[in-house]
This record gives sequence, C-alpha cells and structure tokens, in this order.
Amino acid sequence: MPLVGVIMESVLDDPLVQDTTKVLEQMCIDFEVRVMSAHLTPELVHDYAQTARDRGLEVLIAAASGSAALAGALASTTTLPVIGIPMTSSELKGIDALMATAQMPPGVPVACMAVGSWGARNAGYYAAQILGLKYDIIRRAYEDYRRELRER
Amino acid sequence: MPLVGVIMESVLDDPLVQDTTKVLEQMCIDFEVRVMSAHLTPELVHDYAQTARDRGLEVLIAAASGSAALAGALASTTTLPVIGIPMTSSELKGIDALMATAQMPPGVPVACMAVGSWGARNAGYYAAQILGLKYDIIRRAYEDYRRELRER
Amino acid sequence: MPLVGVIMESVLDDPLVQDTTKVLEQMCIDFEVRVMSAHLTPELVHDYAQTARDRGLEVLIAAASGSAALAGALASTTTLPVIGIPMTSSELKGIDALMATAQMPPGVPVACMAVGSWGARNAGYYAAQILGLKYDIIRRAYEDYRRELRER
Amino acid sequence: MPLVGVIMESVLDDPLVQDTTKVLEQMCIDFEVRVMSAHLTPELVHDYAQTARDRGLEVLIAAASGSAALAGALASTTTLPVIGIPMTSSELKGIDALMATAQMPPGVPVACMAVGSWGARNAGYYAAQILGLKYDIIRRAYEDYRRELRER
Amino acid sequence: MPLVGVIMESVLDDPLVQDTTKVLEQMCIDFEVRVMSAHLTPELVHDYAQTARDRGLEVLIAAASGSAALAGALASTTTLPVIGIPMTSSELKGIDALMATAQMPPGVPVACMAVGSWGARNAGYYAAQILGLKYDIIRRAYEDYRRELRER
Amino acid sequence: MPLVGVIMESVLDDPLVQDTTKVLEQMCIDFEVRVMSAHLTPELVHDYAQTARDRGLEVLIAAASGSAALAGALASTTTLPVIGIPMTSSELKGIDALMATAQMPPGVPVACMAVGSWGARNAGYYAAQILGLKYDIIRRAYEDYRRELRER
Amino acid sequence: MPLVGVIMESVLDDPLVQDTTKVLEQMCIDFEVRVMSAHLTPELVHDYAQTARDRGLEVLIAAASGSAALAGALASTTTLPVIGIPMTSSELKGIDALMATAQMPPGVPVACMAVGSWGARNAGYYAAQILGLKYDIIRRAYEDYRRELRER
Amino acid sequence: MPLVGVIMESVLDDPLVQDTTKVLEQMCIDFEVRVMSAHLTPELVHDYAQTARDRGLEVLIAAASGSAALAGALASTTTLPVIGIPMTSSELKGIDALMATAQMPPGVPVACMAVGSWGARNAGYYAAQILGLKYDIIRRAYEDYRRELRER
Repeated sequence: MPLVGVIMESVLDDPLVQDTTKVLEQMCIDFEVRVMSAHLTPELVHDYAQTARDRGLEVLIAAASGSAALAGALASTTTLPVIGIPMTSSELKGIDALMATAQMPPGVPVACMAVGSWGARNAGYYAAQILGLKYDIIRRAYEDYRRELRER
Repeated sequence: MPLVGVIMESVLDDPLVQDTTKVLEQMCIDFEVRVMSAHLTPELVHDYAQTARDRGLEVLIAAASGSAALAGALASTTTLPVIGIPMTSSELKGIDALMATAQMPPGVPVACMAVGSWGARNAGYYAAQILGLKYDIIRRAYEDYRRELRER
Repeated sequence: MPLVGVIMESVLDDPLVQDTTKVLEQMCIDFEVRVMSAHLTPELVHDYAQTARDRGLEVLIAAASGSAALAGALASTTTLPVIGIPMTSSELKGIDALMATAQMPPGVPVACMAVGSWGARNAGYYAAQILGLKYDIIRRAYEDYRRELRER
Repeated sequence: MPLVGVIMESVLDDPLVQDTTKVLEQMCIDFEVRVMSAHLTPELVHDYAQTARDRGLEVLIAAASGSAALAGALASTTTLPVIGIPMTSSELKGIDALMATAQMPPGVPVACMAVGSWGARNAGYYAAQILGLKYDIIRRAYEDYRRELRER
Repeated sequence: MPLVGVIMESVLDDPLVQDTTKVLEQMCIDFEVRVMSAHLTPELVHDYAQTARDRGLEVLIAAASGSAALAGALASTTTLPVIGIPMTSSELKGIDALMATAQMPPGVPVACMAVGSWGARNAGYYAAQILGLKYDIIRRAYEDYRRELRER
Repeated sequence: MPLVGVIMESVLDDPLVQDTTKVLEQMCIDFEVRVMSAHLTPELVHDYAQTARDRGLEVLIAAASGSAALAGALASTTTLPVIGIPMTSSELKGIDALMATAQMPPGVPVACMAVGSWGARNAGYYAAQILGLKYDIIRRAYEDYRRELRER
Repeated sequence: MPLVGVIMESVLDDPLVQDTTKVLEQMCIDFEVRVMSAHLTPELVHDYAQTARDRGLEVLIAAASGSAALAGALASTTTLPVIGIPMTSSELKGIDALMATAQMPPGVPVACMAVGSWGARNAGYYAAQILGLKYDIIRRAYEDYRRELRER
Repeated sequence: MPLVGVIMESVLDDPLVQDTTKVLEQMCIDFEVRVMSAHLTPELVHDYAQTARDRGLEVLIAAASGSAALAGALASTTTLPVIGIPMTSSELKGIDALMATAQMPPGVPVACMAVGSWGARNAGYYAAQILGLKYDIIRRAYEDYRRELRER
C-alpha cells in the first residue's frame, strides 16, 4: 500500500518526476504516480486529496510549473503534508513556479523544494525524512544514503 | 440580479476591492461581493464557481496575493471569464501574485490585471468592456468614462 | 465576418500566433490576422482600433515583446476588450513584456495572458469565454473542450 | 519533552518567531526556542543538529535572512526534517532568503515556507502536519484548526 | 520658443517632473510642460508628437510608470529624439517602467534614464548634451555644471 | 571625419556591434570603431573621451556587459551625449548590464537602449535622431527609414 | 599612516559608511575617508587609485549605489584589492548596485559585499581578514571579535 | 606549500574551477583543489576550514551554486579571507547563488565574485591582489598581467 502519492500536472513532466520516484524506491517507500491538474481537472485533484489519508497515503508530492497551483490545491483539501516541486516548463523557467509554490497563505503550508531536477530529487528525500520519523526502515535508508554521501 | 461576482481572499483586502466595486457602480453593473479563499475554503470557491453561471453571473473578479490561486481556482471550475487582481499583501509585494495570476496553463485562462490598486480599478473596467458587448447601457457607461478621460 | 482581430508586431511572431488561431478555429470563432506595430506603424494600429467595433469585431488579441506597447495602444483607442500576449523575442525573454502588458494604468485595462505559447493559446480560450456570454455556439465549443480536458 | 526545535539567527527575529511558537502552542506541540547562527556560531548549530534526534526532537524550524544558511546547515548535520522560514531583515527584503532556503542541492532538502510572517506561521502548521502522522492529538489539533478556517 | 517638451502622464507626477524642469532652467533651455497619457489620451499624444518638430521642439522628455508607453508612443510618431524617465508610481516601483522604457524594438529608440528622481534630473542633463551639439550657450551651461561638480 | 565613435569592450562583441555600424551607414553617418574597456584599459577610455569633442565626434556609443561601466566612464569624462547598449555576454544575460547602464547618478546621464541586438540597432537610430537635429542629410535618412517602416 | 581608504560617492552615504569605519577602528586599522564619484569626479578617483599603493594604502573600500561604478573604477587603476559595498539610495534599492558591483569582467575583480548596512560592516571585517594575513595585531583583533560572537 | 585552497561542491564544477586554477598558476600561486560540500559533507568543510590557517593556507576560494552555502560555511569556521564564486548549475542559473554568496550577515564576510566563468577567473586574480600585499612575486605577476591587458 503506497505511503506517498506523486502527482504531476502533465505527462510531459514524467522525465523529471522519475527523479522523484527513483529516490522513493531507493528510500524503500511505496508510492503511486498520478497525472492530474489543478486547473484542467480540479475535481480529480479534489477527490484525490480528500481520500488520500483514508487510502493510507501519508505524504503528497506535487510537480507543477507556471502558476503552479497543484501543490496548494492538494494542501487546501487534505491535512497531510504536501511537498511542492516548482517545474520549469513555462517561459519564465521556474521563477514563477517557485514563488507560486512557496508563497502559500498562513494556515495551509506547502513545503517548497528547489526548482526542477534538484527539487524533484529532494522531494523524495524530504518524504523520507518525514516518514523516517515513523518508519525505521525508511529512516535507516535515508541515513545510509547520507552516510554514503559523506563517504563518497 | 448581479452580473459580476467579486471575490476576495480575506476581509483585509476590502479597501482595495472597494476600488473595484466603485468602478462597477460607475459602470452601471450589478455585482455581489464574497470573501472566500482557494486555500482556506476551497469548497466554497468550488461551489461558488460551479453555480455562478446558473445564478446569472457573467464575469468573476478575484483578488489574491502571494500564491494567488483564487482566480485560477475559479477558472478551473467555471467557463465564465475570470479577471485576476494580483494583490500586494505578501512580503514579496505583488511580483509573486503577478506571476501566479498570469502564468496559467493552456486551456484555463485568467485575465491578469496590474498589481494592486491599478488592477483593482481596471478589473471593474475590463468587466465593463466584456459586458458592454452584450449590454448597451454598460458599453455606454464605459464609453462615457473614456470620453471624460479624454476631455479632462 | 470576423469577431476577433489577432494582431502581431512582426511576421516573425507568426508561429506563436498560429497557436492562437488554431484555438480560435477550434472554438468556432471567425477571426482576421494583421501585422502592425505600435512603434513602427502607429497610425495603422490607431486606425485598426478606431474602426474595430464598427467593422463588427468584438475582441482584439495582441502579441508583442519587449516594451510590448501593442495591446495597450489598441486599448487606448477602442473600448473593446483587448487580450495581450507577452512574447519572448527580446533578450529579456518575456519578463519585460509581461510587466509592460499587465501594468496598465487605471481606466484602460489589458487582459494579460501567460508569456509565450501558453498565453498564445489562452488568448484564444479567453476570447471564447468572453464571446461565449453572447454566442451559444462558442460557449458550447469551449465547454466541450473543457469537458474533454477533464475526460482525457 | 520538546518535539520541535525553533532556531532563529538573532534575537531581533524574535517577534516573527513568536508567530511560529503561537501556532505550535495552538497545535499542542511542545517546543524549544534557540538563538544561534550558521555563520556566527556554527559549532552551536552543528552540536544542536547532531544531538537533536537523540534529545527527542523530530522537526527543526529555522528562521534566517539574506544568505539564510541556517536551515541548510541544520539539514546538513541531522536527518530530521527541517523547515526553513526566509526572513526579510536584509536589504533585499527576503527574495535572497527565499532563493537561499529553497535552492538546496539534491540529497539534503529544506522545506521552504513563504517569506516573513506568512512563512513563520506556516512553519508551525507544517510541523503539525508532519507530526500529525504520528501523534493523534496533533493531527486533531490541525484538523480542528482547518475546520474552523472553513467555518469562519 | 521652447526647444524641449516635457510630458507627464498625470499631474501626480508633477513633483518629480519639477526635478527635470529645474535642470532645464539651469541649462538655459526653454521648455514647455504638458500632461497627457498614451493610454488615456492617445490622440493628444499623437497630435503633440506629430507637430512637435514643426513647432520648433527638438527634444521630447516623457515621464511614465507601469507599462510606461508614453515615451514609446511619442517616439513612434515623431523622429525627434525622445528621453524616457521610468517613474515609480505603480506597485512594482519602477522595475516595470524601466523595462518598458528601455526595451524598445529596433527602429524606434527611446533613451532610457534611471528610475525616478535620478532619471528626472538626468533627462534634463541629457537634453542639454544633445542640444549642446547645436547651441553653444547650452553646451557651456552643461560644461559649467560639470566643472562645478568636479570642483565641489 | 567621423561624427560617431562606437566603442566595444572586447572584440567578442564585434558581431553585435556590426548591427550598430550597419545602421550608421544606412543613416549616412561617418563613424569610427574602437575596442577598449573601462576596467581593463581605463586610460584609453579616458583619453578617448577627453579628446572626443575636439576630434569632431558628436555622439559616443558604448557596448558593454555585466557591470557595464564603459558608457558611464565615457560620460564621466566627456560632455558629449553617450548611448549605452547593455550586452548579454555575462551569465546574468543582460539584466545586470541594463541596470548598470540605466541607473546613472544625477548629473552624468547615459541613454540606455534595449538589451542586445535590439539596442545595438537602436543605438544607431538614436544617434541619427540626435545628429538629425543638426544635419539635414541624417534627418532625412532617418525619416526615409521611418517612412519605409510604415510602408512595408 | 592609513592602510585602508574608504571612499563614498556622496556625503549622503556618510551614515552607512560610519558602519564601516566603526568596524575598522574596532579592528585596529588606520584608515582615511574620502568623498569622490566615478561619474562626477573621475579624475579624483583615478588619481586616488593611482597613488594609493605608494601612499601606503593596502585595501580600498568603495560604497556606491545604482550603476555603482566606483569600486570598479578604483580596481581598474590600482592593483590593490578593492571591496565594494552596494548601496541602496537608487530607486531600485540596491539590486542594481549588487549586480553592478559583483559582475566585474575577468581580470579586474571587486569583492562584492552584501547590500547596505550588512555590507558596510562586512567591508571592514573583510579588510581585517586581508590585512590580518600580514599584521598580527589586526588578525588578533578579528579573531577576538569572532570569539566574542561565539561566546555571546 | 599551497597558499590558496580551491574548493568546489561537486566534480561537475571542475571545468569552471580550472578557470580559477589556470589564473592561480599564471599568478605564481601554489594551490590545492578539493571537492567537498557544505550540505553533503559538512564535517569535511568544517575540518578543512578549521585547519586551513595552520596548514599555511592564506586564502580560500569556494565555488557553489543554488543555496551556495559553501563559501559562507568556510568563512564561519576560519578567519582567513574567503572568495565565493556563484555557479550556474541550478535551474535559476546563478541569480540564486549570487544572492546567497553576497548577502552574508555582519561579522562573517565573503568576497562575492561575478557569476560563472567571469567570477571563476576573477577569484584567482583577487587572490593574487590579496597575496600581492605580502608576496612581491605575486604582486609583480598580477601587475605584469594588468600591464599586458593594457598593452594588448
């Protein structure tokens, strides 16, 4: 049963989102991947967020560009922690998505990661840090990875 | 029966939104004002947008700051034209809201106005331009205003 | 008889403007395309805007980069709604055109879309939202498109 | 025993950090507050981060401005989740701290909140979302708060 | 007979424009001051620019904020040199007007000065440099001023 | 005898500066081209500016990137009008040079053009506008060019 | 005999520059303070830089805003290390001076500090770090200061 | 025995860092090169900085991108002068690293160079300027280089 839901706005974001899912695998975290858009398919997003906790999900990761409303839309409906990855596919190349993802109003936070591929990978690691508080296997996987980083 | 719905994220935005409603009055446009937030009360936003056309509304105006998802959230649910006013109450003073409002993905546009009070007033005038295509009294009110601008 | 006038500053913008015209076709909207520049051929722009309403046009769409004065120049002369697309051909890649298009002074609004190809497509959809208030066939075309988006 | 460590660079940040601690109290979360700086007292930061997990802390919150290295310095030493609040006390008013906080390299994420007081409050709520996965009382406190937001 | 026309968008800009006119007086340059707007009174702007050379004007100075189309609108109609002062009255505080003033398309230049009061004064000095090529009294006035700067 | 001095920081800028010199030829303006740098060869810049007027030059054009001090260095030494072209060869791609060129302190103006090739061409046209006040052949060349633009 | 020359563009910068000189005193460094401008009094700047090393100066500190050419102008004439403080007195509030100070072309570096008062103080500390390589008393003064920071 | 330590975050930065080391060779400066990261291997960074002075190093050069904490982390631990090179490998292309490198808090300065390859080379030259105060051979090497620049 997946602990993390990874949501992208468009199938075009798939290559970057694979950076996230590779990290989740490395961190021993079960996940599911969905394509839905806060602007094009808001009901899907709403239903997904609404049922996420009951379906056993514990962290949501959302990748979006431009106005980048996806992470905020999920956060507005669930009380699970949401991690946002600002993507670069708009013509402003991610500075728009960075601001839209980070500048959430008080009460409904989103954890904003770095723009693009750095953020895509870090979304996976941040999910591991959160879930590592509860699941020893995940904590150990992340600690092993950090140890390797140091030893490399 | 109101033709325009003016929606603000927070009662704190009321002074700026009065710039919009004064223009709507000057343009002979009936309107209603609501306070709701894409992030704090997403169901209210969804229901409002979903029923807007059936209730006779023809244009929606949304004022929001920071991530500024309100205009986009309305646009994702209704097919009425939505006008967005980027507000300045976040610490980034509106450049964030400008990008979040303008950079909508293809398929679900928002008409982005200028940041702050300029945009608040222009949202009213733009609604008049749109509705002026259909209602002669509104078209004439806007044309009179433009004539006065020239004569002043 | 065209309802929408699509104006570009230069023939070099043609590929992006085709994103707009493809959407207008999909939305069952008759349109005309013109090349003229607020800075190089201001009289053309003035005459076009001045006669636009009488010639039956109801919405103008302007694509411009850099100082991007085209949309504002049209809006200063007509009282029809104007939609602006900030283009990316200047060395500042569209952030200049975004600000120049959005930051219109009170009284003469322009509906600013996203920078580049996202905005080019959304200009067509926004025209459909405006005209859909008056023409059922256009409203239905846009609603069908939105339904498809959801079902895809 | 505190679950959350709130660290600020300087006592001057105290008023904003109280926005965080008020939220933590409202969320039924025990916390401790420390003043230390990644640049002025790096050993303190290192020791704090190194012993954080063993002392029972589960989430760290760091408020910093300008180069804003505090959150990243904590994250480089602990494997606990770190939440960063970009502060506005430098002359660039927070855009510098936003980028410095969000743009972490792959492997060592920081959850970047909004600039200034919005982010200060959201750091508290995000800590509640994370800890709510493990502690029912915290989850319920945050859900109650969200319910109130909707009902207000 | 005035050699320089100083045009401002709005009477609200008068205090800053007085920085320009004080310099023009100091430089022994006759000038006239007008209030007109590229967006609100485009015909006035057009007529002013069209007749400027025949009325003996040799340099135009335009102060505008936000989309800041005034200098470009003058330049599009006259072949006299136009100097643009990016003003700060929009909520983006002049970065918008700087880009809109400087980023003119090839063929129709505007000489962009610094944002705000620095630029208001330099517009006067730049007019003196241009006119000093033709009028000895103006050249000497500017050279005297520069000598004083060095001696102060 | 050249009326315009075109100065570039480095031979690498030559292709863009040819955009300027082609325009000067088209405008019937004699010019000279020099390579010198405000930072690497400041004495050359100083001597060039100091003797410019006596050698018959009437306008200086400077192309520089990054800190882009060249135009300002010339303007600090001569009282001739200086036109600055912000170049794009630094890693910040011209936004740095735009600010450095435009933001001159009161007393010593530089006429800032658009970034890159647009500005390179407009520097030539602006020189023609300035010199056209004094030389009929140049005025007519620029007026002919503008007429062609309109007729094209 | 002073080791450090502190140069400001204008007496208006005096309050901020006192942040620098207070640090220099605390660091046991003899200094001199001068007011001169790269744009208004370039010969002064040139002569000052040219004779600086022979007069026993070892480090130059320059505070400037806007185009902020002062530090670069000094660096172009002396081979002593130059420290630049980007000031905030232009309407762009220091982002212009930051870029102009940092983006020096290869061969003639400037050490750019933070914008405004942070940078003013750090210019003094950086001078102490440089001079501490050669003068034990200065090295110890800076090390004492750092020790105090840690102990406070 | 090396006088300068050149530290890069990742082996991927090696090509740019070679711009630095080539300059150091040209300036007759012995150096060592290390790969370590403030975020991935903070202990290495700490130990390196702590022992730097005792090992005879006199200047540290750090190249980092994104949050770019490396230079600041070194500066927080050593009292040697640190030179920071903002790199471009994050998706924000160096504007993030420029701010993170320059905006250090009072007490712990970093000398920020230009973004990317300009800065990489200038880091070498700035080290030569600093060390030239103490070592005649280095001073002469830099003075020779500057003389060549002028003569070229």
